[in-house]
Amino acid sequence: MIYIPLLLMGCGGVGRQLLCHIISGRHLHSKLGVRLRVIGVCDSKSMVAVPNVLTSEFGDEFLLQLCEIKSRGSSLQELANFGDCQVFSGQEISRKVIDVATTLSKSNGLALVDCSASSQTIELLSRAIDLDCCVVLANKKPLTSSLEDYDKFVSQPRRIRHESTVGAGLPVISTINRIISSGDPIYRIIGSLSGTLGYVMSEVEGGKPFSQVVTAAKGLGYTEPDPRDDLSGMDVARKALILARLLGHCINLNSIKVESLYPVEMGPDAMSVEEFLVNGLPLLDKDIQKRIVKASSNGNVLRYVCLIEDSRYIYIYIFFFFFFLKLRPSSSIDIRLHFLLGVKSAYKKLRKIQLWLEIYSRCYSEQPLVIQGAGAGNDTTAAGVLADILDLQDLFS
Amino acid sequence: MIYIPLLLMGCGGVGRQLLCHIISGRHLHSKLGVRLRVIGVCDSKSMVAVPNVLTSEFGDEFLLQLCEIKSRGSSLQELANFGDCQVFSGQEISRKVIDVATTLSKSNGLALVDCSASSQTIELLSRAIDLDCCVVLANKKPLTSSLEDYDKFVSQPRRIRHESTVGAGLPVISTINRIISSGDPIYRIIGSLSGTLGYVMSEVEGGKPFSQVVTAAKGLGYTEPDPRDDLSGMDVARKALILARLLGHCINLNSIKVESLYPVEMGPDAMSVEEFLVNGLPLLDKDIQKRIVKASSNGNVLRYVCLIEDSRYIYIYIFFFFFFLKLRPSSSIDIRLHFLLGVKSAYKKLRKIQLWLEIYSRCYSEQPLVIQGAGAGNDTTAAGVLADILDLQDLFS
Repeated sequence: MIYIPLLLMGCGGVGRQLLCHIISGRHLHSKLGVRLRVIGVCDSKSMVAVPNVLTSEFGDEFLLQLCEIKSRGSSLQELANFGDCQVFSGQEISRKVIDVATTLSKSNGLALVDCSASSQTIELLSRAIDLDCCVVLANKKPLTSSLEDYDKFVSQPRRIRHESTVGAGLPVISTINRIISSGDPIYRIIGSLSGTLGYVMSEVEGGKPFSQVVTAAKGLGYTEPDPRDDLSGMDVARKALILARLLGHCINLNSIKVESLYPVEMGPDAMSVEEFLVNGLPLLDKDIQKRIVKASSNGNVLRYVCLIEDSRYIYIYIFFFFFFLKLRPSSSIDIRLHFLLGVKSAYKKLRKIQLWLEIYSRCYSEQPLVIQGAGAGNDTTAAGVLADILDLQDLFS
Repeated sequence: MIYIPLLLMGCGGVGRQLLCHIISGRHLHSKLGVRLRVIGVCDSKSMVAVPNVLTSEFGDEFLLQLCEIKSRGSSLQELANFGDCQVFSGQEISRKVIDVATTLSKSNGLALVDCSASSQTIELLSRAIDLDCCVVLANKKPLTSSLEDYDKFVSQPRRIRHESTVGAGLPVISTINRIISSGDPIYRIIGSLSGTLGYVMSEVEGGKPFSQVVTAAKGLGYTEPDPRDDLSGMDVARKALILARLLGHCINLNSIKVESLYPVEMGPDAMSVEEFLVNGLPLLDKDIQKRIVKASSNGNVLRYVCLIEDSRYIYIYIFFFFFFLKLRPSSSIDIRLHFLLGVKSAYKKLRKIQLWLEIYSRCYSEQPLVIQGAGAGNDTTAAGVLADILDLQDLFS
């Protein structure tokens, strides 16, 4: 049996769903010869840990209790009443995480799983990597901060997994990594990476006013708490940055041109979320409607489209003796978020929370590799994180 | 540095392309901290091995010489003139392979890579698995013979990789494995799995006679040497069987209903390949043409479609406390190869050698996970094999 000790950071929707998947998958994992041992869970304010990380783990009942407590918005501190656990808060959390990582790195190892949406985990994760811990991310922030941080995270590529940072559980990252490792150079990725905006636009195309759809989507939990995080294109930009860095581009978030769906005057500095929803949003209806009518008159739809293009590599094949030569002319990187693209067939297929991606490489030049499907939601995202964790098992044997 | 010793079985188009990818990828592998050491290569008649499998490996020049010799149809025996190697033939081959596997399994380990299309490798691979070797397959035969063999091959799931058995380098197997391991039950897979037949039918739809297209496709190397291996649907059936077994169906090749494109009277027992091409094939033109016209009048196209459906599992969710209950009513498995399917949009997109697959599971129910792209050809297939090999690296560290 392979034991994988897990320390979970973040117990919002994705984190709780992950615990649920872990519990319901126990039988399957044991058939695979793996036991996932949850030894600690933290949110932004508190942390619970087992008394002895080398020998004990949280029982499933305790974890379900944890989910129940968090889903009704209470503090992890409450768990002190429900079983044998240590509770930490504030500054103690970092110290305890590093303490656990240090202890376990000397024995079986540790996987830190970041299901938060916070940039406060970056420093801790970075120190854990120095201690040879494994890291699994649903959180995009650690991979989209400074290049220095990014380089640290990918310095041990076999110890980091982050499938769910782009397209939830869809096999985007693993596929790109496979293509790259096989020596097949990817020169273009194009896709619609935001499930939320895909949903919003398809509803607007169906005849509803933009403001009404965004407000409803917020109510359904499809958008971020401040819908402007989605409407600004920043969420898509982070995904695009992760893909671009994966292809070897040394760029930062501010290198990406993003077309925001609202003007600066409606930004977070100018008005509150409430004000934006009530007074700002309706002012955008007319313009969005106009663009949709224009697009549909050409048989198109409106979507946020991300294009990562690489003209750095020109491959010249010399088939004699199977050699090929690689030239590196001047670099040119182009990452853009379009809002209107004049392609008739593929874009039409995008419905609701669907994600779609095309990868072009030597092997996939005439016919790109296409990945498409549900690319949002806690269930799918947590399933992707769990698959990532299980894929680390060879490092724990 | 992680050293992965490789023993390659089969040096036809895929095997030679794999050696080419290995050689041209040296720089990339060394950045990943991996060195692929080719220590033996065999075809159906001969084998070459390095004198000491523990310390030496074939140099790149030797491997290129090997590719050159095999591409002009000569024997591996010729290599005795080109460097320090041992040559074996006939019965000696099995003995040597097991000898190498035994020696290496006690030290660093060994990956056996089967790029042949032969069922003769099954016994050897099975014995190698008993010796804890890793196995990478492009060859479909080992996974589509008896259930006993199959169970042996998957008994150590982390030691076997076979992405290229279905859809060449497309991430079909790895994606299905990820979904299964995350505990998300797949209940339906539907797809067009034959690049060859996809090509043939799209050409016929373009107005060319069926017989002419098949003859041309054979000339281009798109079909098997006997095109009836493709036209009988057996190649697709093997792929369907691999997917079905992956989903847990305990079935054999003869459980799969396949619609052959030629009648029994034109089978290999009744006429030679030449006779079939000259006298049999043209007799099919009229019928195929009629079906294509009928399909297109409904806005459809004709494709071999594989459907794997599972009604074994009914999932009942009880959201309270995140539990879910699994019922197992009577089993019903349905794997069919349709030749005509009345779906307008998706099928229309299939062009030339393109492969397309939809996966339905709990996470991907309303919106299936779609994988699509070039799913045939030596380059893509070998790239998939190489990615599989590199993915084994944690077992060699």
